Amino acid sequence: MSYLTLADLKEIEPVAGFKARFVHADHMTLAYWNVAAGAALPQHAHVHEQIANVIEGEFELTIAGETRVLKPGQVAVIPSNVPHSGKALTKCVLIDAFYPVREDYKRAAS
Amino acid sequence: MSYLTLADLKEIEPVAGFKARFVHADHMTLAYWNVAAGAALPQHAHVHEQIANVIEGEFELTIAGETRVLKPGQVAVIPSNVPHSGKALTKCVLIDAFYPVREDYKRAAS
Repeated sequence: MSYLTLADLKEIEPVAGFKARFVHADHMTLAYWNVAAGAALPQHAHVHEQIANVIEGEFELTIAGETRVLKPGQVAVIPSNVPHSGKALTKCVLIDAFYPVREDYKRAAS
Repeated sequence: MSYLTLADLKEIEPVAGFKARFVHADHMTLAYWNVAAGAALPQHAHVHEQIANVIEGEFELTIAGETRVLKPGQVAVIPSNVPHSGKALTKCVLIDAFYPVREDYKRAAS
């Protein structure tokens, strides 16, 4: 068991304007993003399934060609290997949940 | 893939003062809680590992006998089958991530 303070965790910026900290359990990773207004995430896909949450701001998400603008209270479920991309229409705070663990982010933030 | 609006989802109150909506992927469940000030969650345990997040308010969490007051920016990782309990010191908004899927909540909110 562990109690963590996000501000104490190493922050990385895997894509320009997308800064993140990560919390890992045995099977899941949660990513806590602070995104600059206008920052864009190129289309990508990963084996990890993902549940994407907008906590603050407006984030334009495109999943398998379908685009929506997400605000707080709206959630996207991205299945394994489905291509997606995004753009922060404003400064955003996002929380993404991934299964299984994002070993790539774990390594990058270690 | 699906885009969801939390307000459109069925809300249940599995414990007095703890109202929740749920989003399920194939392997994970995210629970979105609105908790009344003073509401208490009795000690319990489940096979699901859990990552607990306080989005708004102050929530007193006890995991395996260790108590902390969590505020936004603080996170708890609760491994499988570890007993935990909680109390909302203020009105709270919480997001819990679970692996595997909470089939019990899926049934309860269907």
